Amino acid sequence: MNKRLLLAGLAFALGAGVAQTALAQVKPETLVKQRQAAMTLQAKYFGPMAGMAQGKVPYNAETVAYNSALLDALSRMPWDGFAPASKDSTAKTAALPAVWGEPDKFKAAQENFHKAVAALVAVSRGGDEAAQKAAIGGVGKACGGCHQDFREKQ
Amino acid sequence: MNKRLLLAGLAFALGAGVAQTALAQVKPETLVKQRQAAMTLQAKYFGPMAGMAQGKVPYNAETVAYNSALLDALSRMPWDGFAPASKDSTAKTAALPAVWGEPDKFKAAQENFHKAVAALVAVSRGGDEAAQKAAIGGVGKACGGCHQDFREKQ
Repeated sequence: MNKRLLLAGLAFALGAGVAQTALAQVKPETLVKQRQAAMTLQAKYFGPMAGMAQGKVPYNAETVAYNSALLDALSRMPWDGFAPASKDSTAKTAALPAVWGEPDKFKAAQENFHKAVAALVAVSRGGDEAAQKAAIGGVGKACGGCHQDFREKQ
Repeated sequence: MNKRLLLAGLAFALGAGVAQTALAQVKPETLVKQRQAAMTLQAKYFGPMAGMAQGKVPYNAETVAYNSALLDALSRMPWDGFAPASKDSTAKTAALPAVWGEPDKFKAAQENFHKAVAALVAVSRGGDEAAQKAAIGGVGKACGGCHQDFREKQ
């Protein structure tokens, strides 16, 4: 496995950021399942970092770097799952009507989240624990800001 | 958002490949949910590429590059979800006992899959459609090889 070439490819391709699925062919229930899967995995990799920022989990620099990188990829995955067709799903969802009723605000919340993740990734390799914990807090705030308006209270 | 820095960080951190979760603290049901979420998203991003290789979906070079990069990240996510503790889950799962009964064989199947994904990523930027389709076929074969022995027939 040529890891150097592999990783260069990863960086290049994610920079493109093009549409990646033929949404018209995807069932509403599948859209919901896929977006929920992305949220589940964001929680998997963000959770330990949030614990570090809150002092509940021992700080580990390698985990911050690795989980931030995976969160970067995952942060690109939920959004096409909220396509209008997904409103026809009979699957259980906590998404509020505001997702489709206030698309500009929803889009702005996504961009706010992407900025927060980018800020975390930017410091995730540096070994500056305080800066990383601050950036982790920023991501948590961005998650919560979107959940506040666009997800049913849990 | 400093995309160049962000992506450099992504490549660096994924190269490290360190353990990223404190598994001891994760419920068995959560392990199952997380590994299934990773499989769901692998299908989301691999599916369109498989369709291209099979001639069922129009070939799109940008989609191959983007989806391959996300598949690269996703391919790292399912495996810790098969930790022995996950056997205690009451959640529905198609994982066969061989996952835990034949760990060396399961690990070899994972490595076979990682090699196939790496081979796909390596050609995913080049614009060589035939090479990409062959590599997509290789990933599909690696998926199927693992499912054959370690997942209930669907």
